[in-house]
Amino acid sequence: MSKWIYLNNQFLPEEKACLHVSDLSIQRGYGIFDFFKIIDNKPAFLEDHLNRFYQSAKQMQLPVLKKREELVSIIYTLVEKNDLSHSGIRITLTGGYSSDNYTLAEPNLILSQHLFPFTTKEIFEKGIKLITYTHQRQLPQVKSIDYAMAIWLQSLIKEKGADDVLYHTNEVITECPRANFFIVTKDGKLITPVNNILKGITRMKVLELAAGNHKVEEQPITIDYIKNAREAFITSSTKRVLPVWQIDDCIIGEKGINPVSSHLYKQLLNLEKNHLLQIAE
Amino acid sequence: MSKWIYLNNQFLPEEKACLHVSDLSIQRGYGIFDFFKIIDNKPAFLEDHLNRFYQSAKQMQLPVLKKREELVSIIYTLVEKNDLSHSGIRITLTGGYSSDNYTLAEPNLILSQHLFPFTTKEIFEKGIKLITYTHQRQLPQVKSIDYAMAIWLQSLIKEKGADDVLYHTNEVITECPRANFFIVTKDGKLITPVNNILKGITRMKVLELAAGNHKVEEQPITIDYIKNAREAFITSSTKRVLPVWQIDDCIIGEKGINPVSSHLYKQLLNLEKNHLLQIAE
Repeated sequence: MSKWIYLNNQFLPEEKACLHVSDLSIQRGYGIFDFFKIIDNKPAFLEDHLNRFYQSAKQMQLPVLKKREELVSIIYTLVEKNDLSHSGIRITLTGGYSSDNYTLAEPNLILSQHLFPFTTKEIFEKGIKLITYTHQRQLPQVKSIDYAMAIWLQSLIKEKGADDVLYHTNEVITECPRANFFIVTKDGKLITPVNNILKGITRMKVLELAAGNHKVEEQPITIDYIKNAREAFITSSTKRVLPVWQIDDCIIGEKGINPVSSHLYKQLLNLEKNHLLQIAE
Repeated sequence: MSKWIYLNNQFLPEEKACLHVSDLSIQRGYGIFDFFKIIDNKPAFLEDHLNRFYQSAKQMQLPVLKKREELVSIIYTLVEKNDLSHSGIRITLTGGYSSDNYTLAEPNLILSQHLFPFTTKEIFEKGIKLITYTHQRQLPQVKSIDYAMAIWLQSLIKEKGADDVLYHTNEVITECPRANFFIVTKDGKLITPVNNILKGITRMKVLELAAGNHKVEEQPITIDYIKNAREAFITSSTKRVLPVWQIDDCIIGEKGINPVSSHLYKQLLNLEKNHLLQIAE
């Protein structure tokens, strides 16, 4: 974790950033967050992430007591103080110190910075294996702190020799706990679920990048349908575009042959690079 | 909240009981708890609550690093230090300080004591109004800290002039966020849901108490079926037995005429009283 953490109105040394046990995240699992990359000490797609952060807060009835420009200023100060050139910043907003352990109070705001492995060429080429599991995240459009199922499934994922889990309801795919899911069909169409998911920022970028070269469809995908996919991949800020070569017992396409995800990965890296160049030093 | 809170290995003044922000309750909503009444400085049905606490911990892969007799000793010390004669104790176990904000770590154990309104004769006679809402708690058999939906629904409950929410899936009733649900049919049968619920300690006591006088069935109840009920009530440690006189727009039976719940409430009070008498001073 970072050397400095911002908590409410102060920058604190990492070890001093604590919440009282009456906070509704601890009492009732109530809170939201967002997470974005820091590359060369610059925040990637910050505007998009802040848009989503404010939306999540609003949907969860949590007032953000900092204006957007204040939050941006706090982020840049944190980046300067921590000097973790390649990392991620997490903004968390909790239900606050509740007098009865139930009623929402003034939210606690935490900004912390973390070293995080991003997908590199080597990780991309290795790809990942997913298992499927029946689960629907509650309030899926909100980036809430509710990852209880995801954490609980870690031991099963490990036991199955997999890297992550793909949620579905009645065989209809939604998302991974921290990533969106895409397939490329045999006729080169790109398909990704659209209902009951968190709409990732990287998902949005990939859809925009793909639009020029592919027929793109946002629609439900069944587990059975995936079996005929030529490629499958997941997207997230840190994972960027990451090929999936196996889901449960089913091998997707041919391992190592993924021209579409490979091209999208390169396009995304370029987009990131150009975006970061536009941010003033 | 209590004057003293037990956190891991120490009794701390209330204001000093804090968790570092890396705890998985704050990061990922991961934790369990249990809650039991303190009456005349004695814990009510402690053995049952400890049984469930250890079961929840096991199901959530959280080791309880205290043996049962140590936990009991901590509870009695806390009761003595706080001297809150009529109150509740909450034992919370969280996912711990995770180095990567995702992997389970050594759990943090918190015991706090709270003043809490118990159902009295006046509250019983007033009864409550519920609204129904489509939701299924994840890992329902575990008393987890996941109350995000319940907290989020507070504003809707208030707007509708109701007291609490009754969850259902496809019109099949499960439970309230912090209470179990029962109906009494026109022919005097007691019915309560059995699947996809948290099995409350008070629910268990009520089922035992009712067995002598009523035909009792644990089975699914549809919203439509409730409309013909003669009585409806909810049960929990603090609510004991609490009549429900309205669900959405539907009035249940005749308000104020609830011989079955009234009798069960009295039986439960007696059971509590006798149970507490058996605990040595």
